[in-house]
Parts: sequence; structure tokens; C-alpha cells
Amino acid sequence: MKPVIAITMGDMNGIGPEIALKTAIHRSVQALCKPMLVGPLNVFEHVRSELRLKVQLQKAAALLPKGPAVSVQDVGDGIWADVEYGKPTKVSGKTAGTAIEAAVNLCLTGKAQAMVTAPASKEALHLAGYNFPGQTEMITLLSRSSRVAMMLVSDKMRVGLVTIHIPVRDISDRVTTDKILEKLEILDGSLRLDFLIRKPRIAVLGLNPHAGENGIIGGEERDAILPAIERGQKSGIRAEGPFPADGFFGDKRHRDYDAVLAMYHDQGLVPLKLSSFGKAVNFSAGLAIIRTSPDHGTAYDIAGKGKARIESMLEAVKLAVAISRNRHD
Amino acid sequence: MKPVIAITMGDMNGIGPEIALKTAIHRSVQALCKPMLVGPLNVFEHVRSELRLKVQLQKAAALLPKGPAVSVQDVGDGIWADVEYGKPTKVSGKTAGTAIEAAVNLCLTGKAQAMVTAPASKEALHLAGYNFPGQTEMITLLSRSSRVAMMLVSDKMRVGLVTIHIPVRDISDRVTTDKILEKLEILDGSLRLDFLIRKPRIAVLGLNPHAGENGIIGGEERDAILPAIERGQKSGIRAEGPFPADGFFGDKRHRDYDAVLAMYHDQGLVPLKLSSFGKAVNFSAGLAIIRTSPDHGTAYDIAGKGKARIESMLEAVKLAVAISRNRHD
Repeated sequence: MKPVIAITMGDMNGIGPEIALKTAIHRSVQALCKPMLVGPLNVFEHVRSELRLKVQLQKAAALLPKGPAVSVQDVGDGIWADVEYGKPTKVSGKTAGTAIEAAVNLCLTGKAQAMVTAPASKEALHLAGYNFPGQTEMITLLSRSSRVAMMLVSDKMRVGLVTIHIPVRDISDRVTTDKILEKLEILDGSLRLDFLIRKPRIAVLGLNPHAGENGIIGGEERDAILPAIERGQKSGIRAEGPFPADGFFGDKRHRDYDAVLAMYHDQGLVPLKLSSFGKAVNFSAGLAIIRTSPDHGTAYDIAGKGKARIESMLEAVKLAVAISRNRHD
Repeated sequence: MKPVIAITMGDMNGIGPEIALKTAIHRSVQALCKPMLVGPLNVFEHVRSELRLKVQLQKAAALLPKGPAVSVQDVGDGIWADVEYGKPTKVSGKTAGTAIEAAVNLCLTGKAQAMVTAPASKEALHLAGYNFPGQTEMITLLSRSSRVAMMLVSDKMRVGLVTIHIPVRDISDRVTTDKILEKLEILDGSLRLDFLIRKPRIAVLGLNPHAGENGIIGGEERDAILPAIERGQKSGIRAEGPFPADGFFGDKRHRDYDAVLAMYHDQGLVPLKLSSFGKAVNFSAGLAIIRTSPDHGTAYDIAGKGKARIESMLEAVKLAVAISRNRHD
């Protein structure tokens, strides 16, 4: 039986509604799952009409969607929300946040097997009173999960992150032994449960240039990272490192591991995106529910123009379906 | 006339002497320039003999080298220095430091047109009393240059760095408007002088994830980076940004620019090395003399085994020769 995949609208002033719609009606998606759009029906109708997309939208009933129409979980309360392409607003943040809440509930109650989130604007979410660093942290709380690790997945590599959306200024204080060990455990568990890898190998990157070069360029490798690796190894995690990030990717050593644990956002995402050609997917590992998302943002500059590409969204749906099947097995 | 290129030994306990020798006798190097090895002659003889390299080494005389032999600027003072492969020692640091000093002098006095440095160990240099963050800073001081920017060059991109060998903990405080503007000016000047690009375009990366996302994830983009770009533009530098690093490289936007200015070591070196396949070269832009080096370290783990590859050294020599010709034009 095909799994139901909830697809949130994201920020309605960005490319969110457009790529959610295009993805839901894409034949590869229709073949793999039953997509269910989550967001105000009238906004989806507005964008569908502007972009002249050939699809019939219908309110999701208690029953699962049938036929060529795409089901919409309408969270708009019948209130028309003006789309203002190109900027974060309180309304776009409220809409995006409401859709996330609804999609998490669909997953928690078993009405959807996984959720895929179109890009939201942190700024808009903040304007609407959702004070989270990002969607991931919000979904973690809403799904009553105790912990999460942001994992990026492409055909070239899987990358886990120790810290995510924090200023570079704060990274060093947040890279602690406990935090690294927690992410190692989540990553290891997810590789086994979600990717069915029996004995996953994980490479751990250093924090500083040259992984600190024996303490000359920073002590976090010796004080925090190496102890975390050793504690992980004692509990059966096949972790190695810490490796200098530039030499590691320069020698293409990521090919030897099932995942790479990076210490911060750009350290992991730059090599992943550079090598993946627009097909990387964000997966929130360690949650009770399954959530994936594309690897890009709201793209305000091309919102409403019908030019947004959906490669990453399609991969996000594929990965969500694959993980829901793997967890079921 | 072929330029004389001084090639320093680097750390004698690493792969330095091996790759310096192999590079000096490589036919592509012999065709391009007159290589002059710089370091203790007896160490070079020792490694030459162990690796059974077919070359005759001779002390550099006042005259330039002729014939198939390779000239050595002997800085060993006739004292035998024991090679202890695989670890940084005070002796290896002293030897490496002395070779650097000699090579800089060869360049300053016009006996060499450029220098290529084999990898030294910062730890060994420190043991020997050379208290510099790296070779680059040492060469800057010795060559009486007032400023420098580390530039990495491959066939895919040129990357300049605002900060280099400092802990991640210290990056934010060092990314100031003045520092960024200084690096922009050096980069712009070097692209014109050394690479003969008439109107170079430079992309400036942000510091924080998503380039701070309008101040939500750090304020350095607004407070330091953007003002530096604007001041640069006013003085005629075609700088743009700040761009989020992951999206920038993900969209392959580096192809649209003559150089990318990264805020810290791994932000620039990870994408450069991942895309360059072992052929990246380090160039110290802005110096009075010309200095290049390979993009890798001492590789203690394979020292003395004859397995070290010289692709990056060969590229370093080629770039040194090209820049010396460009500056001459």
C-alpha cells in the first residue's frame, strides 16, 4: 500500500506553494505515494491558477485521496491570506507554522506516514511568534521527540551536523563531548533503522583548521571530539576521526564511510551541495516521525514566477517514502 | 630565459625532501624553469639514495646550474641531521625554518625569481623557536612585506581567505571590516598583477550559516562584511556578496567569478580541495616576492616510503613560473 506523504506549503511568499504543488502532481511522486498538501486551500488554489497547473485540488476528507486530484489538508480556516511574493510577513509565517503543526499531527496520528516540508522563512516564523532556530527544532518539539540530528543526504554522501543554525561565534562552546556523542548515537541509530545499514561507519570531522594540528590551532579536538569518538566506540559505534575537513574531502574519503559527522553547518553543507548538483535532501534523523525537506531556502527572488525547480523536493519525497518502508520492514 | 625557482625541503621527517627532489627532476619542471633545492645537502643525498632517484646533486655555486644535475643551496652547515620519519622534532623544525630563510633571501636578492615551499610542520617550527602560525606568516615577515592573503588556486576556482590558521573560536572577532577590505584589495591587486585579469570579479562569502539570514544567525554580515564590500566597490573593486557559502557552491556560482573570498580556512579549502582532485596550489598573494606551495601537509604517515605524489608540487612550480612571467610582463 502506498504511504501518505504530507507536504507542507512552506512560506507562501516564497516558492513553497509552487514546488509543493508541482511535486504533489509529479508522476514519479504519484507513482510512489499518496501526496497530501498541507496549507490554506485558497493559497494553493491561487498559485495553481496563476501557474496554470492542471490539477484538481480537494479538501482532505477522513478517507484517503483517490483519483487524479490532489488532497489538501486545509489549515486556512477559510480566511483569505494575501500572497506578497518576495518577502517574509507575519501572515506567511503564521501560515507556514500552522501547516507544520498540522503535518506533524497527521504523522503522529498515523494519517500520514511521513512529512516533507517546503522551505519556510525563519524571519517570517519569528514575526508570527514561532521562536525556533528553524523548522527542524520546531518539528522536534511538536513531535515530542527528545532529540534530533540534521542529516543531509545525496547520492554522494550523508552528512550529520553537530550544530546547525547558530552564529559561527557560538560554535566552539556548543561542540561538547555530550553533544557530539548524542549526534553520533542518533546518526548510528538512523543509519541502521532508516537506511538498513547493519554496521555503519561514521567519519567525524575536526572543528578547527587541520583538526587543530595537535592542539596548536585549538583544543576542541582533544578535549571534546576525541573523547566523544572513544565513548561512542566503547558503545559499539564505528566512529573514526577527528579528520581535518579539507584534506578529508580533498582525498574523497567520504566515499569510505556511510556518513560524515560535521561540527557546523557550512562544514557539512558546502561539500554536500557542491557535489550533489541540486539533489540533496535534508532528513531530521532521530525523530519519532519521519520528516524530510529540500536543501534550499524560500528563494524569494524567483517566487511566483513558475521557475522554481523541484529536483530536491522530488528527492525529499523519495527519501521519505524509502525511510517509511525501511522502518516498516 | 628560464626563471630560477627555489624549492625548500620542508619538514625532513615528512614527505618534504622526497617531493622536493621528485619535483626538481621532473621533466615538466626542468622544461619550465631552473629548479634550485634549498635545504641541507646531506639530507637530500640521504633521501635521494634511499629512494634510488637518478639525479646528481651539486652545491649551488655563484653560477646558475647547468646540465642534468640539480643545484642545491646547502643550508646544513655540514652538520649531519638525523632524519626521524614520521614525527616533528626540533631539528626538523630548525632545518625547515633555515631553508625558508635561505629561499626568501634568494628571492629578495634576485638569485631566484620565485620560491616553492614543501610542507613544513608548524609543531616542529615551534619546537625550533619559529613562533609563527604557519610558513606564510613567516615568509611575509622575512620578505619585509606589509600584508598577505592566502590564495588557493585550482583549475576550478581561486579562493582567498580572510582568516587562516586560527581556532574557530577566534574567527568572528577577526572578521572585521578593515581586515576584509585589506584582503579584498590584495586579492584584486593580485588578480590584475599576477593573473593579468583586467577587471576581476570577486564573490565574498558570508560568515554565518545562510550568511546570517538578515541578522537572525549572527550580525557580522551586516556589521563587517557588507561595509567592506561597499568600501571596496567605492575604490573600484568589483566585489559582490555576502553570499551563503553552501548555496553559493551548490549553485556553482564560483564559475561566475575570478575569485571567491572566504571568511575562514575550511569554508574556502573544503570546496576547493573537493573539486580540484589533488591539484590545488597555495599562493601567498600580496608579497613582494613570489611564493607558492602545495595544498597538503607533511604526510608523516607515508614519509620515507617513496609513495608521495607530486601533482600539487608540480602545479605549484607551474604557477610560480607563470606568475613570475606575468609580473615581468
